[in-house]
Amino acid sequence: MKNVAIAGVGQTKFGEHWDQSIRQLAGEAVKHAVADANLESARVQALYVGNMSAGLLAEQEHVAALVADAVGLAPIPSTRCEAACASGATALRQAYLAVASGAYDVVAALGVEKMTDLRTQDVNAALMAAGDHEWESSIGLTFAGIYALMARAHMHRFGTTREQLAMVSVINHEHAVGNPYAQFPFTTTIQDVLSSPLVADPLHVLDCSPITDGAACAVIVSERIARQLPTPVWLLASEQASDTVALHDRASLVEMAATKAVGSAVFEKTHLKHDAIDLLEVHDCFSINEIFALEDLGFCQKGGGGMFVEAGEVRRTGTIPTNTMGGLKAIGHPVGATGIRQVVDITKQLRGTSHNQLKNPHYGLALNVGGSGATAVATLLGLDQL
Amino acid sequence: MKNVAIAGVGQTKFGEHWDQSIRQLAGEAVKHAVADANLESARVQALYVGNMSAGLLAEQEHVAALVADAVGLAPIPSTRCEAACASGATALRQAYLAVASGAYDVVAALGVEKMTDLRTQDVNAALMAAGDHEWESSIGLTFAGIYALMARAHMHRFGTTREQLAMVSVINHEHAVGNPYAQFPFTTTIQDVLSSPLVADPLHVLDCSPITDGAACAVIVSERIARQLPTPVWLLASEQASDTVALHDRASLVEMAATKAVGSAVFEKTHLKHDAIDLLEVHDCFSINEIFALEDLGFCQKGGGGMFVEAGEVRRTGTIPTNTMGGLKAIGHPVGATGIRQVVDITKQLRGTSHNQLKNPHYGLALNVGGSGATAVATLLGLDQL
Repeated sequence: MKNVAIAGVGQTKFGEHWDQSIRQLAGEAVKHAVADANLESARVQALYVGNMSAGLLAEQEHVAALVADAVGLAPIPSTRCEAACASGATALRQAYLAVASGAYDVVAALGVEKMTDLRTQDVNAALMAAGDHEWESSIGLTFAGIYALMARAHMHRFGTTREQLAMVSVINHEHAVGNPYAQFPFTTTIQDVLSSPLVADPLHVLDCSPITDGAACAVIVSERIARQLPTPVWLLASEQASDTVALHDRASLVEMAATKAVGSAVFEKTHLKHDAIDLLEVHDCFSINEIFALEDLGFCQKGGGGMFVEAGEVRRTGTIPTNTMGGLKAIGHPVGATGIRQVVDITKQLRGTSHNQLKNPHYGLALNVGGSGATAVATLLGLDQL
Repeated sequence: MKNVAIAGVGQTKFGEHWDQSIRQLAGEAVKHAVADANLESARVQALYVGNMSAGLLAEQEHVAALVADAVGLAPIPSTRCEAACASGATALRQAYLAVASGAYDVVAALGVEKMTDLRTQDVNAALMAAGDHEWESSIGLTFAGIYALMARAHMHRFGTTREQLAMVSVINHEHAVGNPYAQFPFTTTIQDVLSSPLVADPLHVLDCSPITDGAACAVIVSERIARQLPTPVWLLASEQASDTVALHDRASLVEMAATKAVGSAVFEKTHLKHDAIDLLEVHDCFSINEIFALEDLGFCQKGGGGMFVEAGEVRRTGTIPTNTMGGLKAIGHPVGATGIRQVVDITKQLRGTSHNQLKNPHYGLALNVGGSGATAVATLLGLDQL
């Protein structure tokens, strides 16, 4: 496999874009990423589009061709990749493999989702299509309900507290302050979280990532192109794993096997140790899932995630700065775009151009999760090749 | 890029499978393909799933993880690829690129669609999501309507006759006789086609491919594995292109630019001439589209497709046997599965194991089209490397 780097990144503001369609959101993100790469858009040879559910959310399938045309990239190959909320990272991964194969030198990976045009209950029904229709959605389970089951199991088994869960949201909101792309760039408190409406016990509204419109794009290039860049960010590993879609089929309610698999694979293949990682982007679709991520990627011990967060280890000032721009909770979660947005934020941090810049980070790891963990994708970025 | 071959193929019967879900259809196709490759399923390292619209048709997104689990392949990476009716070929293409990159030695490409659980009007609405929602579906256009516009333009411009269009269906049905996987393995006549109900003038019911459930799978392997096979079928080229989704944005109503692009790319890259190709699989979703395919791939001149078909050149006994097992019209068109099914049928022909075997074919070309031509994928298979 050939070496691969990220040459440019861009995104729209995440939020409610009632005046913009998929075309326009996608167009803006691609434009910014291509300009950031300092390439002519005519250099882009293929496009991968992460999108979970434009069919249910916008009566529009075939979004990859639609977007290629809208951004002026047709007739290049354009393919939609879908793995629920991990769609973005799977699109990035296909772009990575396409460049690593030698087929292309410049490929764009886009994530886009337009979610706010429907009523909330219809959006929830569309999102629940990421669960198992035969066993979960058809009996009325929601994703808040699924994650509530896992949160309750984690609290029961390890003594994780309601306040520790709330702390995940509090810290993510703290990190979003100053992020011009965030849907909710303001602080909140443990008391705010606990007094927000209950969605599915023990999860409250402020444990849940919001419904969001948005797009993010990364331009992936071969080593030949990357060598001409001032600060190439190397795409050092992209690992993906699957698990059962239905929660009841899993051996455990308190860990995600797919996350463990991709985390182990990244560290084994790159021979890096955990303490080499300077920042994390994890999939805090619900507060409990940040705790799962920290544990299952091995940044703290199993069951210790709540205390780890409570101790502030995930703060920008902590031992492993996590979701340094606000995470899904505060930046927003346009489902197909999130996996790319994570990579956009790590890229900016590694280049030293983040709005909330860490001091000299060298390696960053992103974890994008689909459904309740049936898909996990880990992406490792770094300032030099291994 | 590394050399890539097809090691095994399999499919379900195409038809109305009211007693089988996506899981079961997918499971059967994967099982047959893995057995055909003479590999243990544990050897499969990644899965790509072509599926157009399980969200709208079955309230199920995240089908790639669902299928990986259902067929016992979890925790391998499993990614859905979508490009409307070309979803199958895009999944095959990602499998090809993943093996060509060196990341994997054995990857399965599956296509699956479950369409018969809804009312016909709801299926048509779901299929129309492959059109442009803002410009086409929202004003009531259907795919039969879109192809009718193109057929009418072709008739007007080149004198193509209603009988020539009907002949496409007649020959495809002729080829389906003896195909145990076909939904409609019986003959029809020009008179049958012309007297079948009018759907969208000039297209009648028997110009249209049916609504179908089904799955098809191909196991893609590296050269190292292929060399151990009795008859490896080499995946010599996989080219993809995009065009505008909306018909009104095109420069011409009588040709498909994406098909022309992928056809040219295959012949340029492989240095093969048209007369080297022994059989074609083309995307006869509507009769007119087989005529577009023959012209735009260059097997006859522009405007001459109707006469080419009328002269019987596409018969199994003709100069370029096309859709030798019945095409989308007679085998059926489970939209996400068709692109893989085409490759299944070419693979069997090249191996000499088809139910309707040609005499010693060496190279076969498949064309899978999404929507009204916004995506085209051409796949070239052959018995030796170029």
